[in-house]
Amino acid sequence: MTQKTPSLQMNEAQLMTFMREVFHQVADEFEVEHVADNEITVRLLVTEKHLRPGGTVSGPSMFALADVCAYLGTLAMIGPKALAVTTNCSIDFMRKPAANTDLIAKGRLLKLGKQLAVSDVLVYSDGLDKPVARASLTYAIPPK
Amino acid sequence: MTQKTPSLQMNEAQLMTFMREVFHQVADEFEVEHVADNEITVRLLVTEKHLRPGGTVSGPSMFALADVCAYLGTLAMIGPKALAVTTNCSIDFMRKPAANTDLIAKGRLLKLGKQLAVSDVLVYSDGLDKPVARASLTYAIPPK
Amino acid sequence: MTQKTPSLQMNEAQLMTFMREVFHQVADEFEVEHVADNEITVRLLVTEKHLRPGGTVSGPSMFALADVCAYLGTLAMIGPKALAVTTNCSIDFMRKPAANTDLIAKGRLLKLGKQLAVSDVLVYSDGLDKPVARASLTYAIPPK
Amino acid sequence: MTQKTPSLQMNEAQLMTFMREVFHQVADEFEVEHVADNEITVRLLVTEKHLRPGGTVSGPSMFALADVCAYLGTLAMIGPKALAVTTNCSIDFMRKPAANTDLIAKGRLLKLGKQLAVSDVLVYSDGLDKPVARASLTYAIPPK
Repeated sequence: MTQKTPSLQMNEAQLMTFMREVFHQVADEFEVEHVADNEITVRLLVTEKHLRPGGTVSGPSMFALADVCAYLGTLAMIGPKALAVTTNCSIDFMRKPAANTDLIAKGRLLKLGKQLAVSDVLVYSDGLDKPVARASLTYAIPPK
Repeated sequence: MTQKTPSLQMNEAQLMTFMREVFHQVADEFEVEHVADNEITVRLLVTEKHLRPGGTVSGPSMFALADVCAYLGTLAMIGPKALAVTTNCSIDFMRKPAANTDLIAKGRLLKLGKQLAVSDVLVYSDGLDKPVARASLTYAIPPK
Repeated sequence: MTQKTPSLQMNEAQLMTFMREVFHQVADEFEVEHVADNEITVRLLVTEKHLRPGGTVSGPSMFALADVCAYLGTLAMIGPKALAVTTNCSIDFMRKPAANTDLIAKGRLLKLGKQLAVSDVLVYSDGLDKPVARASLTYAIPPK
Repeated sequence: MTQKTPSLQMNEAQLMTFMREVFHQVADEFEVEHVADNEITVRLLVTEKHLRPGGTVSGPSMFALADVCAYLGTLAMIGPKALAVTTNCSIDFMRKPAANTDLIAKGRLLKLGKQLAVSDVLVYSDGLDKPVARASLTYAIPPK
């Protein structure tokens, strides 16, 4: 007996459409740049509201990006389930983001179980090669 | 030789004034309800921008509240140091917040070292007795 | 329609018996001192194997104590389910434990859901009033 | 003025020697398989004492491996400083390790600051390609 390996259920455009329907308040802030089996890249289009004094991107904005990145990377593999919820996030803020610069999050889906999905994410200031933050996130997947 | 036990350096009004000066973008969202040695209570005044579909408060808003709560609880004991930075946060989202209801964060300062301060926070929907989220946060304190 | 509030299913002696049956390798290291609804106190009987140079208790020993404490505090409310598994732990090491001294862990069960249970734990060197470590842990509960 | 990029200070043999001197209680359990700039691979030689019923490796053993891996990966870049201490660990247990099988930890040093170093680690059952655990760890580096 074999178990089917999950494969990509949604592409970049489908993820964007889903986000606009379900999270219309924030969908314009994010851009899915790339999605593939168990990996995803999402951009935060940084504007005034994401900034702190000195032009640096705020902690909650980095958290929000990591969360959206891991969430969409999970949905990409299980299909559109708005009810999947974040249950845990651990985030390390490692460097000050560059001023007035978009952030790029690169997520990996490490575990896709029936009940739980676990991802990790590295967040970069666009154009720089050292990450500004690292996060790991768990989602509870609603029963079918 | 004895080591002085740290004591409260800033009261509720001083913390609010500091926040308005340094984080004017978000200061109006938060209200310091109570501060004492190693403990603090902060309210998030929930408005449209904190909500997700169904009226529930978003994850990033809960994160932001936990962060502000632990940050101000730390500053209350060390005095106004805008440069203290969040280095780590672990947060568990445990229940769905009540719709259109303020959140109340209760923080404890567990460790105040020379370089690092560690706090934990429980977040409640105003009026309910079971927490919606739990967070622990570490701040790096700049050298004198 | 009402939902039954969970109540204590196992007392101190029952938890110790369960641990000896299921985790006989380590059961002798731990002592359940007190259990009540949603709270528990567990002692680590510190011996040579828990120590690092200088007599301080090792990080893995503190982790193991926090894990056992939160696990037994969860089982106390749901009954003996050996299959509940730790899915996440975040732990902050805040102070050096006293040399050659037992550790005491005080756990609180913050959320008992159908699928997930979340606890937090403070760990003390026996007799001292400031915690040496803080941990939060999540357990996945097997379906009935 | 330029800042020197840190480079490797200790090779596999030097790390093993350091561990035997400083952590003689546990040094025999671990083997540094590979170290390079900002990356390291460490093996846990699984024996009876690491096991739980069914032959699976215990949570504290996985934690200990992640901790040793990140610690040695940090020391490799800063030189032998026994006083560097773990301040935070967040760990996700994602799959059951294979029975009676060594574990392999692959660590990356993500941030090496003056005061803090942050790493992440993936832990595998030897020979399998999906990780059993994921951890991120922070170390406080003593001032010179």
